Amino acid sequence: MRWTQTLIPTLKEVPVGTEAVSHQLLLRAGLVNMLTSGVYSYLPLGLKVLRRIETIIREEMNAAGARELFLPCLQPIELWKQTGRDQVLQEIMIRFKDNRGREMCLGPTHEEVITALAKNYVQSYRQLPLTLYQIQTKFRDELRTRFGIVRACEFIMKDAYSFDRDVEGLERVYQKMYNAYQNVFKRCGVDVHIIAADSGAMGGDVSHEFLALAPIGEDEVALCGGCGFAGAGALWAEGGGSCPSCGKALTKQVAIELGHIFQLGTKYSQAQGAMFLDEDGKLKPMIMGCYGIGVSRLIAAVVEKNYDDNGIVWPREVAPYDVEILPLTGEDAEGRALAREYAETLEKCRFEVLVDDREESPGRKFHDADLIGIPYRLILGARGLKEGLVEIKERRSGRVLKIRKEDIMLRLPGILRDGFPEKDEDAGRC
Amino acid sequence: MRWTQTLIPTLKEVPVGTEAVSHQLLLRAGLVNMLTSGVYSYLPLGLKVLRRIETIIREEMNAAGARELFLPCLQPIELWKQTGRDQVLQEIMIRFKDNRGREMCLGPTHEEVITALAKNYVQSYRQLPLTLYQIQTKFRDELRTRFGIVRACEFIMKDAYSFDRDVEGLERVYQKMYNAYQNVFKRCGVDVHIIAADSGAMGGDVSHEFLALAPIGEDEVALCGGCGFAGAGALWAEGGGSCPSCGKALTKQVAIELGHIFQLGTKYSQAQGAMFLDEDGKLKPMIMGCYGIGVSRLIAAVVEKNYDDNGIVWPREVAPYDVEILPLTGEDAEGRALAREYAETLEKCRFEVLVDDREESPGRKFHDADLIGIPYRLILGARGLKEGLVEIKERRSGRVLKIRKEDIMLRLPGILRDGFPEKDEDAGRC
Repeated sequence: MRWTQTLIPTLKEVPVGTEAVSHQLLLRAGLVNMLTSGVYSYLPLGLKVLRRIETIIREEMNAAGARELFLPCLQPIELWKQTGRDQVLQEIMIRFKDNRGREMCLGPTHEEVITALAKNYVQSYRQLPLTLYQIQTKFRDELRTRFGIVRACEFIMKDAYSFDRDVEGLERVYQKMYNAYQNVFKRCGVDVHIIAADSGAMGGDVSHEFLALAPIGEDEVALCGGCGFAGAGALWAEGGGSCPSCGKALTKQVAIELGHIFQLGTKYSQAQGAMFLDEDGKLKPMIMGCYGIGVSRLIAAVVEKNYDDNGIVWPREVAPYDVEILPLTGEDAEGRALAREYAETLEKCRFEVLVDDREESPGRKFHDADLIGIPYRLILGARGLKEGLVEIKERRSGRVLKIRKEDIMLRLPGILRDGFPEKDEDAGRC
Repeated sequence: MRWTQTLIPTLKEVPVGTEAVSHQLLLRAGLVNMLTSGVYSYLPLGLKVLRRIETIIREEMNAAGARELFLPCLQPIELWKQTGRDQVLQEIMIRFKDNRGREMCLGPTHEEVITALAKNYVQSYRQLPLTLYQIQTKFRDELRTRFGIVRACEFIMKDAYSFDRDVEGLERVYQKMYNAYQNVFKRCGVDVHIIAADSGAMGGDVSHEFLALAPIGEDEVALCGGCGFAGAGALWAEGGGSCPSCGKALTKQVAIELGHIFQLGTKYSQAQGAMFLDEDGKLKPMIMGCYGIGVSRLIAAVVEKNYDDNGIVWPREVAPYDVEILPLTGEDAEGRALAREYAETLEKCRFEVLVDDREESPGRKFHDADLIGIPYRLILGARGLKEGLVEIKERRSGRVLKIRKEDIMLRLPGILRDGFPEKDEDAGRC
C-alpha cells in the first residue's frame, strides 16, 4: 500500500482535550477520528489493527470450540422484560419507539437474544454443549465517555455464550475460555491480571475479570509483590493492605478491564424458559456462561502498553503493517523504484507493506514512521544506495541492520516473521 | 467442521408467513433467524455466506483503488441539518435524544459523515483522488419490511465514497466502480441489468442501478429482447412498450435493486464546506460520488437465482463450505473415520469442510445436504466402502463420480477448485 493512496492523517500536535496517552497517539497516528464525543470512526490504519485483533480473537474462540454468528443490534424491549434487565440496564440503554409503535432498544449486550435463540433451536441434551460468539458493535448511552475509544457510546465487543447440560460442562467451557482469554491478551502484547470478580448486572456466582494495569484504568486491583496474588481493589481496604494468601503488603493500582467471564447458571434460561430434555427424560433449564472482550478498548490498552516518547510501538501480531518502506530520495530516483519492487515481492509473500511515497523530508518520514509504529522499517537513502546498502530498523529496540541491497529479499522476510537476528548471521528467507 | 459441533438448525416445514423462496430457504437451511419482524440474526452458516460475499466485495473494491474504513452508526442530527437530509430521510431515520440531551440518529447512509471526515483531512489537490468504503450495519425504520433480509430494519451495506478534483476524475472512478460492481455480481452468481436511474434522495445527475430479475423485486425494469437494452420500468409506459434504440417490443419485469452508484457532484461538499486548494491556488468544493451494495440483500438475491426444488444451490465462490462429507454408516465405523481423515487433509489444503456427523438416517442427511446446498458432497456409504468406492456428487448438476477411496485426495481438491471434470480422466491434485 502506498501512503499517498490511502488516508493516514498524522498530526504533529497533541489534540486538545485529550488526557490518555493512547487516545492522543491513536488520534495523532491517524487511526481513529472523533465524530462526536464518545463516537469514533476507524480510519484505514485503525481498521487494520482492529481486524488483526479480531483475527486473534476468532482463532482463539474457534480453537476453544466456540462458533461464530452475528446477532442484531435492534432488540425488542419485550425480550428484556422477561429478565427484568430493561430496568437494571435502563440508564445506559438506548431506547426508542419505531414507526410501528414497537418499543425497541440498541443491544448493550446479548444474553436475552442468544437465550431466545437457544430456546428456539435446542430441545435435547444431544445438542449440548454449544458455545456461540460474535464480534459486534454495541451501544451504551454513557454520560461520562472517557479516553477516546476506551469508554465510548458505540464500541466493538466479542461476546460468547455457552449452553450446557450441567455445572461440570459449564466449568469445562469456562476453563477453556479462561485459557483462550490468556492467549488473546498475550498475543496482543498486553499483560493481564486475572481476579475473581463481582457478577453485577450479569448475574451468576463465579466470574473473573481480565485487567491490564494502566493509568487510564477505571478499576482498582490489589497486587501482592510477594506471592503474585491479584485481587479486586476493595480487598486492599478489607484486608488492611495485606495479602490474604501470604500476609505480605498489597499495593493498589489502577487497571483497565479488558475481559470478563461469568458462570451465569440458569438466571436467563429460567427467566426465558430455555429448557432441554435430558437423558433421563426430564425437562431442565440450560446452564449458561457468558464471556466478553472489549475489542475496541483492547486497541487502546495495546497502545498504553506499547509506546515510547516518539509514538506507538505495535507488537508484531497486531501491527497494521508488517513493514514500512521509506524511500528517502527524490521522485523517480532509485529508492522509489526499489521501494515498489520490494513491496511487490513482499506482498507476494503475504506480508502487509506500507510504502511512504510522499514527497516529504526524511525528517518528517522518520517522525511519522516512529509515530505510527510499524515494527520494522526499510530505509532507502540516497547515500546508502550509492554504496549499495539499505537499512532495516526495528521500531522497538531501535537496532539497525545495514544490508547489501541485493540481499534484502534473502534477509527481510525472515526478520519480519521471526524478529531481528541475535547475531547478524541469522536470517530466514521468503 | 462437524455438524454436531455447530448450529445448523434445518427445518422440514416451510415457515408460516413467508412468501419469498429465498426467505423460506434461508430459514429452512438454518442460515438466518428472525428476532422480530425486519430484524434477523445470522446463524453460523449464514454468517459464512455473508463473509464470503464481503470478501468478494473487498477484493473488488481494493482492486478499484478504494480504501476501507469503518464509520459509526451513531450520528449527531446536527450534521444532517447541514444538508437538509434530516428532513428528506425523516420517515426512515431512527432518532433519539441521548442522556446528555444530544439529538442523535442511527445512520441510514453515510454521505454526511464521510464528507465531514474529508473536510477534516483533505486540504490540497495533492491528497486527491481519494475513495473510501466500509461494510457496515445500517438502520432504516421500515414500516413495510418484506421478504426476510431483503427489506429489513437492520441490514448490511457496502458504501463507498469518492472525492475528486474535477469531473473527469469523478468519471474515471465512477467507471472503475461500475466495472467492479459487474465483477462482484458475476462472482456471486447473479446476472444483473444495469439501468440509468433517478438519483432520488442522494442527489446528483448521473446514476446507475444494478438490478437482478426476481419475483421478490420491488423495482420494474423494461427489457428489449431485440438489442438487449434495459431501462427503468417507467420507460415501458412512456415509450408505448417499444424500445427507444431499436423500436422492438419491450417487456416489463420485476427486479431487485442490488447496487446503486451516483455521481453526486458538489451537493454534499458545498453544503458542508468540504473544500480543497487546487493547483491554481483556488479553493474548490470536492467532486463526490457514492456507491452502494446491499450486502445482506445480495445473499437473498443469490438464493433467488440459485435454487431448485430441493434447496439452495450455492455458487462456488459464496458457498458456506466447499464440500460436505456424509458418512452414512453407524458410529465408529469406517465411514466416520474416513470422514475425519478426509476433512483434516482438505482443511490443511485450506478448503472449508462440513462433516455431517449426526446420527441421522441417510435419507435425512441427503435431504439436508440438498437443502443447505454445498456445491460438492462426498458420500461414504457402507455398501460402496465394502467395494472400496466413494461417491462425489455435484449439487448443481446432480452428477455423480464413483472413485476408489485411495484416489480421493488425488481427485477431490481439483474438483473443488475447478469443478467437475468434463470427462472422468480430468482432475487436479491438492
